[in-house]
Amino acid sequence: MERTEKNTIAVAFIGLGAIGEPMAKHLAEPPFQLAVWNRTREKADAFGKANDARVAATPADAARGSDFVITCLPTSYDVEALLEGSEGLLAGLRSGSTLVDCTSGEPGVSRAIAARLAERGIRFLDAPVSGGVSGAERGALTVMCGGAEEVFEQALPVLRSFGEKVVRCGPVGAGHALKSVNNMLLAINLWSAGEGLAVLAKAGVDIDAALGVINASSGRSNVTETLVPERVVTRAFPRTFRLALLAKDAGIAAAVAREQKVPSPLMQLASELYRVAHTELGDLADHAEVVKVIEKWAGVEIS
Amino acid sequence: MERTEKNTIAVAFIGLGAIGEPMAKHLAEPPFQLAVWNRTREKADAFGKANDARVAATPADAARGSDFVITCLPTSYDVEALLEGSEGLLAGLRSGSTLVDCTSGEPGVSRAIAARLAERGIRFLDAPVSGGVSGAERGALTVMCGGAEEVFEQALPVLRSFGEKVVRCGPVGAGHALKSVNNMLLAINLWSAGEGLAVLAKAGVDIDAALGVINASSGRSNVTETLVPERVVTRAFPRTFRLALLAKDAGIAAAVAREQKVPSPLMQLASELYRVAHTELGDLADHAEVVKVIEKWAGVEIS
Amino acid sequence: MERTEKNTIAVAFIGLGAIGEPMAKHLAEPPFQLAVWNRTREKADAFGKANDARVAATPADAARGSDFVITCLPTSYDVEALLEGSEGLLAGLRSGSTLVDCTSGEPGVSRAIAARLAERGIRFLDAPVSGGVSGAERGALTVMCGGAEEVFEQALPVLRSFGEKVVRCGPVGAGHALKSVNNMLLAINLWSAGEGLAVLAKAGVDIDAALGVINASSGRSNVTETLVPERVVTRAFPRTFRLALLAKDAGIAAAVAREQKVPSPLMQLASELYRVAHTELGDLADHAEVVKVIEKWAGVEIS
Amino acid sequence: MERTEKNTIAVAFIGLGAIGEPMAKHLAEPPFQLAVWNRTREKADAFGKANDARVAATPADAARGSDFVITCLPTSYDVEALLEGSEGLLAGLRSGSTLVDCTSGEPGVSRAIAARLAERGIRFLDAPVSGGVSGAERGALTVMCGGAEEVFEQALPVLRSFGEKVVRCGPVGAGHALKSVNNMLLAINLWSAGEGLAVLAKAGVDIDAALGVINASSGRSNVTETLVPERVVTRAFPRTFRLALLAKDAGIAAAVAREQKVPSPLMQLASELYRVAHTELGDLADHAEVVKVIEKWAGVEIS
Repeated sequence: MERTEKNTIAVAFIGLGAIGEPMAKHLAEPPFQLAVWNRTREKADAFGKANDARVAATPADAARGSDFVITCLPTSYDVEALLEGSEGLLAGLRSGSTLVDCTSGEPGVSRAIAARLAERGIRFLDAPVSGGVSGAERGALTVMCGGAEEVFEQALPVLRSFGEKVVRCGPVGAGHALKSVNNMLLAINLWSAGEGLAVLAKAGVDIDAALGVINASSGRSNVTETLVPERVVTRAFPRTFRLALLAKDAGIAAAVAREQKVPSPLMQLASELYRVAHTELGDLADHAEVVKVIEKWAGVEIS
Repeated sequence: MERTEKNTIAVAFIGLGAIGEPMAKHLAEPPFQLAVWNRTREKADAFGKANDARVAATPADAARGSDFVITCLPTSYDVEALLEGSEGLLAGLRSGSTLVDCTSGEPGVSRAIAARLAERGIRFLDAPVSGGVSGAERGALTVMCGGAEEVFEQALPVLRSFGEKVVRCGPVGAGHALKSVNNMLLAINLWSAGEGLAVLAKAGVDIDAALGVINASSGRSNVTETLVPERVVTRAFPRTFRLALLAKDAGIAAAVAREQKVPSPLMQLASELYRVAHTELGDLADHAEVVKVIEKWAGVEIS
Repeated sequence: MERTEKNTIAVAFIGLGAIGEPMAKHLAEPPFQLAVWNRTREKADAFGKANDARVAATPADAARGSDFVITCLPTSYDVEALLEGSEGLLAGLRSGSTLVDCTSGEPGVSRAIAARLAERGIRFLDAPVSGGVSGAERGALTVMCGGAEEVFEQALPVLRSFGEKVVRCGPVGAGHALKSVNNMLLAINLWSAGEGLAVLAKAGVDIDAALGVINASSGRSNVTETLVPERVVTRAFPRTFRLALLAKDAGIAAAVAREQKVPSPLMQLASELYRVAHTELGDLADHAEVVKVIEKWAGVEIS
Repeated sequence: MERTEKNTIAVAFIGLGAIGEPMAKHLAEPPFQLAVWNRTREKADAFGKANDARVAATPADAARGSDFVITCLPTSYDVEALLEGSEGLLAGLRSGSTLVDCTSGEPGVSRAIAARLAERGIRFLDAPVSGGVSGAERGALTVMCGGAEEVFEQALPVLRSFGEKVVRCGPVGAGHALKSVNNMLLAINLWSAGEGLAVLAKAGVDIDAALGVINASSGRSNVTETLVPERVVTRAFPRTFRLALLAKDAGIAAAVAREQKVPSPLMQLASELYRVAHTELGDLADHAEVVKVIEKWAGVEIS
């Protein structure tokens, strides 16, 4: 990899959403030299002004001259859609550079993108993150990577700018597969905790006592330790991670399971339940709000 | 409650199984005065000798003169079966005494037992425990109780002898309901982790890396933090908690859900999957071995 | 069995509901001598007037002097509730008479009722029916019986008055078990046809053509041949058999499956889906209306 | 469409399997002029000799000069794989001719194939069949077609040679969607009948009586009327339609449901159960043998 300038790493960041924006901020300082692009131009302009970063007119423009292009978009299809055309990433990416896709995407699509890029000598790493907005702000995300060992190592300085735990877990697509499974476990742990606590609430069991016991016992999970006490029992339901996205991720995990021919009744059923919940609660609901569907069906409130 | 002697609490312990025996040991010292009974007499004799406790000839004999009778048996039906007859607990239990049932039992059966006891002025507390053999040995169990506040408070000295976190969570049956739901969450978290990790293993994802990431992320649970790394990945599968018992507990939770008219597709499906696994793996298998059924179906080993 | 009068069979009919009333009419003629009782007295009075039958003041009064008492009630618990007390059936039933329970009931409760009756020398036959209101009117019901061969044979004249296909299928409870499984198959065939047709409708497949093909192929069932074309596609949804009752029957089949320790993921999941649909659609909805829940989730109409 | 000769229709038949061979026979007589191709050349040679048909050396050779090319292969991917290359169908198909795909295939793949053909002026009709070997022999298949009205009408003489009920049910892919849903209903009706009858068998209900009752009642289906009495109860299990293929079809239906965003818990779970059964029973098992998995789990035989 040739660098644009000694010790400087040229990075383009595509997608300044809730997670993307605080991630990009960590790349707005030396040794990084940052260009940004966002579908809604205003966001990019504001970011550029606040962080002294170049605001690119097109994805191609952002990619031009970059050592690394980072994408952080809703789906793999959004990444795919930015590749082609005179304004697309491929028109700007140079041989030897790397596309780091932080989207919570699909392994199969990533493998196709990687193959397309390889034709031009461009490298690919899928690198979805977990840790939420606050993790992104603190540069403390977990980054799970899929790609060649060498590509991963070269990208480490970039990944470590926003990541605390940065792990290579397999070939291209492995990061996306792992992220989808992690989120499927979250989805299942959440739905089953909802069912179980609704049962206990109707049976007259004190929910705070129940959570205390479960969290000292074998049934505990991140959901019972954090999500339920902070968001459900308080009825706060802050909108930090949309149900629509968790439903999408659960769908990806279910698809990978089918692709791998792994019988997975729980994952497949859970994916359908999230599809139902998404239909019932709409596009803006937070993921923790699925509990409201269970509560409606049960005729009880978990609190 | 009148005490047999100033400051002494007379306790009978019924059921010296894997968990019951180390629990009973904490009651073999002052201020407790302990009698024990076990279906297999040899176990009781050995315990009596080692701990200087009275070995009762029958449940009635154990109960006679006791302030508290503690039962720790496989199922609520075993408790029910010990009540009646000339050698049964009812023949020995005196008015004002308390039956503390530490069995992982059924709320409905417990309510029936409590009603039967109430006719004779005997109190009832369901008080199942979690924490395993090691928690029992260290006197560090979590004890989840169902029963009247007053009955709970009076039983506290006994419960604290083996319990670190002792909680009253509702009326009679609440302890059993909570224990069953905790174990159902364990069952679901375990099965779904098995499905998800089998998918990742087949997709070429490094399992240690995957666990590291999940345990730093939103999908983590006691299962991914403890059970899978210690028992599955190592292929150790120590036999500490039988699948047959977890399947029973899952069945209880599913039954409570139906009783409470809570639609619970995940819990009901999970209960069936554990029924299948129990059939496939037999009565002696440890609960973590359910993963082997998933592995067989998937054609992969999680390691 | 002694008869009240040569060639005359004294029958009491308890429960003049949608199915019960047209059944009872067939017993209002010689050789039968009919007494009726109904919770809502007005219904019994109107029936008595129209059919020249004795209207009993209480269940006991109806049972008194009867060779056969027929119950046709919503649930086994309703039958159980009519047994005891000074006005209950047991106060009127004489030794040697037979209780024929046409309720779509529960095998376990029926076994308990049979045992209670046997103490008094009274026989029991569970004899649920299928064929709907029109089958009842035409005396063309299918009657599935559980009980001793001898009891069944003696009851044949009564059963044939309203039944065309009258079958003994096993011991006490067998009729109820079979009825519940039949209705569970109806429930599953209906729900899966709803899912499948919703998919086809969204995919732009002509539904009439689809039904024509399915009904000439391996996927056909009573649901696709009758229920869907007559009730769903026409949007008629006549209220002939309440969803609440089908959900109850599905619940019974699911319970029998668990009692028999048969892993039954499809039946258990279907039972939960009907619980959800019942919650969504309320107590008055017809069973075919479950399709509306699927349609709402899918965002399409099957027509 | 120009014809090779007045009143003669030139047809190529690709895939002389269990269903394909008897279908092709109906096209070996005037007005049809038949060429055949089969992966295993010996089969094609034997067919050509017995039916006086031209045996083509390659798919391209078969297609050359044909008005219609009929494919009848295991999966859509097999059809796709025969298109390209110097020996592929595209090398032989002429503009204005029609590819009729009788494979039980995938709507999405068919739409892609249709688009590829359209570039060359070749038409496409998906036309999967039902009715089995005997239906194929008698020319009495049901043929469900997806494609333009005009393409369908022109293909009718060919389709009617082996089809009794020939229906156009929508655009390209509609035939494959419908076939998959029909087979999914078969799959679900079969599995649920297996569960229900296993329950009844364990509960001591006479299975012949049970089938008699169900088949006179609302729970009846092609499965209970035909498949179970003829194949399961008799323990004959003839191998006529492989479980592997039904599992594939169920998987297609489940995929179409997801593509259409229809929440479909029963279909998704059924698809997983067939995946498990396929793993347990292997590639050669007949579809009715799935009952053996249920029987093993239940510990009972349905007979």
